[in-house]
Amino acid sequence: MKKAIVLLSGGMDSAVTLFMARKDHDVEALIFDYGQKASKEVDRAILVAGAAKVPYTVVDVELPWRGSSLTDPDIAIPTAEESEGAKIPSTYVPARNIIFLSYGVSLAEASGAEAVYIGAHQVDYSNYPDCRDVFFAGFRKTVEAGTRSGTEGASIRIETPILNFSKGDIVKKGVELGVPFELTWSCYDEGKTPCGRCESCVLRAKGFADALVPDPLLAKNE
Amino acid sequence: MKKAIVLLSGGMDSAVTLFMARKDHDVEALIFDYGQKASKEVDRAILVAGAAKVPYTVVDVELPWRGSSLTDPDIAIPTAEESEGAKIPSTYVPARNIIFLSYGVSLAEASGAEAVYIGAHQVDYSNYPDCRDVFFAGFRKTVEAGTRSGTEGASIRIETPILNFSKGDIVKKGVELGVPFELTWSCYDEGKTPCGRCESCVLRAKGFADALVPDPLLAKNE
Repeated sequence: MKKAIVLLSGGMDSAVTLFMARKDHDVEALIFDYGQKASKEVDRAILVAGAAKVPYTVVDVELPWRGSSLTDPDIAIPTAEESEGAKIPSTYVPARNIIFLSYGVSLAEASGAEAVYIGAHQVDYSNYPDCRDVFFAGFRKTVEAGTRSGTEGASIRIETPILNFSKGDIVKKGVELGVPFELTWSCYDEGKTPCGRCESCVLRAKGFADALVPDPLLAKNE
Repeated sequence: MKKAIVLLSGGMDSAVTLFMARKDHDVEALIFDYGQKASKEVDRAILVAGAAKVPYTVVDVELPWRGSSLTDPDIAIPTAEESEGAKIPSTYVPARNIIFLSYGVSLAEASGAEAVYIGAHQVDYSNYPDCRDVFFAGFRKTVEAGTRSGTEGASIRIETPILNFSKGDIVKKGVELGVPFELTWSCYDEGKTPCGRCESCVLRAKGFADALVPDPLLAKNE
């Protein structure tokens, strides 16, 4: 099987993407510690990689300028209701997916992988500009023009297999593939249990409700 | 004056770019420590920022997979002659400029800067794909589509003021602007003095020769 890199966050979307990519690729997970308040994401990502039996690399991404409620201790994580008014909510992290994908492409080139997978989706999502097909189209052109693989051989593919899945579709696909949802973490905040109020918690709940499946993470906390 | 971010490497090209940008922007320098053998580049970049009287931020960029003779202790830095046969030499670092520009865009968005400057040039250069106009065109589209600034307001500009300068033009422009070339470091290797044989040393020498200006860095070492 050919090699692929999967960007793994600890959340449910990238976990499902990992299990999809694993079906026909020799997968390496790439995990980022970027100073997010929900630092347990990193531990959860490592657990998910372990459950999927794939090797992983954790990279520290320094963003000392912050610029997001996900990373700045002086800006509170908004509730889903508070986010709703904003075209792009304060949880947007400047250029985050461009940075993460760039690391993925770097590792792919250095390790001979043919693709980088990312679990972005643009249906039930938070209005992040870097989760939309128009962004990925631009990034693919950048990789094609700006890398050794793109100019001398086949460009590293940027794969977004759940881009047009609803949150419910993502849960269903994960159940089908045996994704250990109980290990994943979606909450933006740093509490011991999910806050249930941030946009990410609300979207996760919507996904499980739409799929008519109980969320095993919440079951554990009951 | 509006704010701009300048990617500063410690080499002569980004130093000239910094002094060009400084003329009409309130500049912040962004310096990367990415495990390069020529680690003194970082110190030199800090000295250049000091000479230009601009604030700076140093970011550690972890690339544990290496993939380049600039970072891998097991791969020797090639001489200019050895590089010449290669379409893209072993000194190419996978996705380096995509990563660096992405950090630049992140800082620009978080700090309200309107542009990111990079000292790439495609005339007397090393065949790096991520130094060509077609790459920057792709990256600009990526930023336009994938950032808050690009979708809600004016996209962060990616400025490449010396893209079509010859190495001699770069030296002449630097002399005109008072760039302290004696503080800059171009050699790819980790020696106390420039090796004089790597492609970067050879291109630097060509630049000073074409401009009919002695290189003050070599004068200091005599």
